Amino acid sequence: MTDLTTALRTVLDGRWASVKDEARAELDVARFGPPDRELGTEAYRARVAEQVHLLARTGHPARGFSIEVGGSGDLGGSVTAFEMLGHADLSLMVKAGVHWGLFGGAVANLGTARHHATYLPGIIDASLPGCFAMTETGHGSDVQALGTTATYDPQTDEIVVHTPDLRSRKDYIGGAARDGRMAAVFAQLVSGGRFHGVHCVLVPIRDEAGNAMPGVTIGDCGAKAGLPGVDNGRLSFHQVRVPRANLLNRYGDLDGQGRYSSPIDNPTRRFFTMLGTLVRGRISVAGGAGAATRTALTLAVTYAGHRRQFAPPGAAQEVLLLDYRTHQRRLLPAVATTYALQLAQNELVGLMHDVQSSGEAADEHGQRELEARAAGVKAVATGHATATIQACREACGGAGYLAVNRLPALKADSDVFTTFEGDNTVLLQLVAKGLLTDYRTTFGDLDTLGTVRFGARQLAGAVIERTAARGLVQRLVATAPGRDSEKGPGDRGWQLALFEDRERHLLETLALRLRKAGRSEPDAFAVFNDAQDHVVTLARAHVERLVLEAFVAAIASCEDQAAASLLGSVCDLYALSTIESAKGWYLEHGRITPARSKQVTAAVNDLCAALRPHAQDLVDAFGIPRAWLGTELLEEPA
Amino acid sequence: MTDLTTALRTVLDGRWASVKDEARAELDVARFGPPDRELGTEAYRARVAEQVHLLARTGHPARGFSIEVGGSGDLGGSVTAFEMLGHADLSLMVKAGVHWGLFGGAVANLGTARHHATYLPGIIDASLPGCFAMTETGHGSDVQALGTTATYDPQTDEIVVHTPDLRSRKDYIGGAARDGRMAAVFAQLVSGGRFHGVHCVLVPIRDEAGNAMPGVTIGDCGAKAGLPGVDNGRLSFHQVRVPRANLLNRYGDLDGQGRYSSPIDNPTRRFFTMLGTLVRGRISVAGGAGAATRTALTLAVTYAGHRRQFAPPGAAQEVLLLDYRTHQRRLLPAVATTYALQLAQNELVGLMHDVQSSGEAADEHGQRELEARAAGVKAVATGHATATIQACREACGGAGYLAVNRLPALKADSDVFTTFEGDNTVLLQLVAKGLLTDYRTTFGDLDTLGTVRFGARQLAGAVIERTAARGLVQRLVATAPGRDSEKGPGDRGWQLALFEDRERHLLETLALRLRKAGRSEPDAFAVFNDAQDHVVTLARAHVERLVLEAFVAAIASCEDQAAASLLGSVCDLYALSTIESAKGWYLEHGRITPARSKQVTAAVNDLCAALRPHAQDLVDAFGIPRAWLGTELLEEPA
Repeated sequence: MTDLTTALRTVLDGRWASVKDEARAELDVARFGPPDRELGTEAYRARVAEQVHLLARTGHPARGFSIEVGGSGDLGGSVTAFEMLGHADLSLMVKAGVHWGLFGGAVANLGTARHHATYLPGIIDASLPGCFAMTETGHGSDVQALGTTATYDPQTDEIVVHTPDLRSRKDYIGGAARDGRMAAVFAQLVSGGRFHGVHCVLVPIRDEAGNAMPGVTIGDCGAKAGLPGVDNGRLSFHQVRVPRANLLNRYGDLDGQGRYSSPIDNPTRRFFTMLGTLVRGRISVAGGAGAATRTALTLAVTYAGHRRQFAPPGAAQEVLLLDYRTHQRRLLPAVATTYALQLAQNELVGLMHDVQSSGEAADEHGQRELEARAAGVKAVATGHATATIQACREACGGAGYLAVNRLPALKADSDVFTTFEGDNTVLLQLVAKGLLTDYRTTFGDLDTLGTVRFGARQLAGAVIERTAARGLVQRLVATAPGRDSEKGPGDRGWQLALFEDRERHLLETLALRLRKAGRSEPDAFAVFNDAQDHVVTLARAHVERLVLEAFVAAIASCEDQAAASLLGSVCDLYALSTIESAKGWYLEHGRITPARSKQVTAAVNDLCAALRPHAQDLVDAFGIPRAWLGTELLEEPA
Repeated sequence: MTDLTTALRTVLDGRWASVKDEARAELDVARFGPPDRELGTEAYRARVAEQVHLLARTGHPARGFSIEVGGSGDLGGSVTAFEMLGHADLSLMVKAGVHWGLFGGAVANLGTARHHATYLPGIIDASLPGCFAMTETGHGSDVQALGTTATYDPQTDEIVVHTPDLRSRKDYIGGAARDGRMAAVFAQLVSGGRFHGVHCVLVPIRDEAGNAMPGVTIGDCGAKAGLPGVDNGRLSFHQVRVPRANLLNRYGDLDGQGRYSSPIDNPTRRFFTMLGTLVRGRISVAGGAGAATRTALTLAVTYAGHRRQFAPPGAAQEVLLLDYRTHQRRLLPAVATTYALQLAQNELVGLMHDVQSSGEAADEHGQRELEARAAGVKAVATGHATATIQACREACGGAGYLAVNRLPALKADSDVFTTFEGDNTVLLQLVAKGLLTDYRTTFGDLDTLGTVRFGARQLAGAVIERTAARGLVQRLVATAPGRDSEKGPGDRGWQLALFEDRERHLLETLALRLRKAGRSEPDAFAVFNDAQDHVVTLARAHVERLVLEAFVAAIASCEDQAAASLLGSVCDLYALSTIESAKGWYLEHGRITPARSKQVTAAVNDLCAALRPHAQDLVDAFGIPRAWLGTELLEEPA
């Protein structure tokens, strides 16, 4: 690596750089890379299951659990290590994420001391392979409406877990089809004929010999678009009895008479508090999406740097793909956005670490902010991954279609990231709802559709709140040139002001619109639904602003001048290509003039050309070990 | 089917409706559908090879060959039948397309009577499985620069086919890895030390027993993102000798002394004439992309019509996905564009049939127009397929990720359509170059990059030329309301005028820009490259306009009033969602006011809501037999 790429990598690696370096050294492709795809599903699953055991021995997974329960208590490091697995094999990343992150996370965060003592040692060393059985065939996004029941039977002091119908079958459950021995089953808790809402119960699903437990029917989801190493399956329960102690009882408990108690009275708030503790899954998926995106871009940019096609008239040599403007446009703004998202991800991981490491005393505001940020970054990062990996595949032509060149697996494996750990469209609505949070007291319950008829107060100011770069951003915005200024689109304050202004306007007009419609339209669903595209646009604008601010903060903290200068251009490209893609909105709302809009397009072209000589440096700085990139795309054929 | 869906289907089916109906009846899924994906690559390939033989017996493939050579001479019917295969299994469609369309097409169109008599019977009945060996590892888009040589040896009256280096290896060749017995090899023809440009030579690659012929090295491309039933491979030739008679000599011949002759003097014109005869491949890919898109939309719309999630406050029942505005926005504009593209495809197939059925006397203008249209529709239809199938996968959530629900295969199989038969970015540049055709005499050769320094004449008028609906379109445009008229975005003349105006302006400014830059900038490549994004935007705008006009023509010819009225709304949605996605351009260029721009967005939302009750009818009208759609997505789980 050159000094420049090392300096860039330092910025990209962020606070958990040492974990990333460990992963680069330890996760050798021979042990942790994907097998030959011709191996078949069953062999692939077996290999990944073995890799999970190998991984347990590296000590990375133990980071995700606190020292008191046998872990090493480095939450940020844990999520970072998982992110790095995304460079090795996404099947392994997801399989590990399901076992340690979701199953282990449920036991750690929803359980209490007795569960920790009984189960966490076997979870940490992977001797008790687990599943996270939340999603059902009929319910994925609306988890509050799950159909599985967990009914307390005071006669035997047991909980009876039951699947009433096909829609309530647990579906897509990672680990269910082959390896899982125990499942964290989310179900409607019932005692004495009363429903207490969704809670989580530990249910053994296989015995030591691997046979399904009595009353448990296990199905196999079969072949999927990708993630062939993950054994997704289906679980149905026929009156399956487990001891009362199997209820993960941190947020809701039953006594021996079936009396229910909870530290949180409001059932909806309780439910979302429980879900909120599981936020690391979303952050990990965003991280994995970033890893897959960086791998794809490294392959496509490297290929475009040696692949030639068409000689200009009279020229002896053909032109490199990366010298074509359309090719630069396909790849370089995506590189810039990938930088921006990596820096936002780093900030998010830091926020998670700080909020969740503070233990029980985590302030509610911090937790809410964390959840909203995780939802937003997850949605935007996974959407970016899908679009970018697709673009990379196409940019490599027929070569990009061959499995040996990895792009097909990157695309297929990451494709479901836009769906699992929260469908992106649903998550963006959550983000927007978070922005309307100050109005919440007038919304009533936190349900998705009832958020209308709220008060009159303008809240735009409240939105633009703390990010790491707030002070710096305020100074830059304060000196931003006006609408008709001579200053070009390269002014950072102007870019920031434009992002902020868009978010503020979208929020203000959304609030007004919902309030106005709420007055005349009695159907709350219709009101919210009419505005749904506005809601999603607001959420995107919000995340784009946060991501830009993370970029600005990272540049400010970069001590290497050459790297900081290059990062400045990359940040310009992120900001201006984002503005360009929303130029219809900016023009419609008189935020930019037509002349300025054309300047933005010209500036994006100029930035692509200016960054082109640094393109290889920019992807090298992702720091993906060469061995992990072993494909035919890296080298020019002789 | 209801009367309405039948009437819609009649419009969509177009001129070759009877061929589509035959295919619906004959291509039963048991025989022609995909096998279980767990079958493994080799078994899949074997099954598809067998299906090719079954297909030969249906008589559909014979349509593609003229009666004189043993076919049934229905070119339009041939392409239509291939399009319908896209509903069954895209592996089979591509495998069949390679054998009959590309290999058979090369022999029929580039060969002469002796080749027809010797080879076409075995091609038509599939007893001589063939490959189309054009693309090389180092050259895909720039086929004129292929490295394989075909050198005449007057001593033996043979042609020596040779692969000089790895970059000149034939790559991605369908049929090469397993089944192909003969390849149509594109190579630089050399005789007496002189290069005559790229020609096609028939080279046996396997003997009857399936062993590689002496001097032929056959490789396997291995697993791909999709199309597992197609045996793509690599071919290298080491001084492989074939008789001189194996040169397909319609456009370039050698006599026994190695003297070269051709009916076309200009080598570049000769080359593009040869390529031009193969235009059916592109048209077939556009058709197959349409079939895959329609299947995906039928699945996603049907699913969204029974899948529920989230109950509004106080409501007993959850909301259907298709009642959510964001969900309507994901699927319904895509349905409208799919309608539009089907109608444009029908027009294209008709044009191809008429131009190519006229035999040798085909006028050059008609042929040029056909090639440009095929390139443009192929690029736009395959890009639309990639985006839409992705959206459908996501719209079906986790269920969309399961192989049993077909969306993964539709996505993976069709993904390469944006690349093969011409990379879309390259094709769009071809389209734009076609639009600058009146300036061509000043361009010099037809090479891709030398299109600068052309004359001064404005040519915009020349672009807006014949489509089926020209008279009608002119009348509608003439009565279009002005920029600030009270008439809403629903006015068809206004929509048409906006599409036309955009195309004209993009072309005028591109011509001016290239001319101006050409004066001051001596580097022709730099000039063209700087404008490359403008070039591609122009091409898209041109195709969008053609597609809209095809839609307008189809509505005008629809005799069923209810269907015509519904098609009018679908056409509005196509037109307005297209305008909406380019609203930045329209605003930037003062073509619409900000207020009008917002009206367009509102109109798209309103149209989605208005079409929502007809969504199932609209996809049912695609006429895909229920058996071909057998997935878990069609029925609500009990």
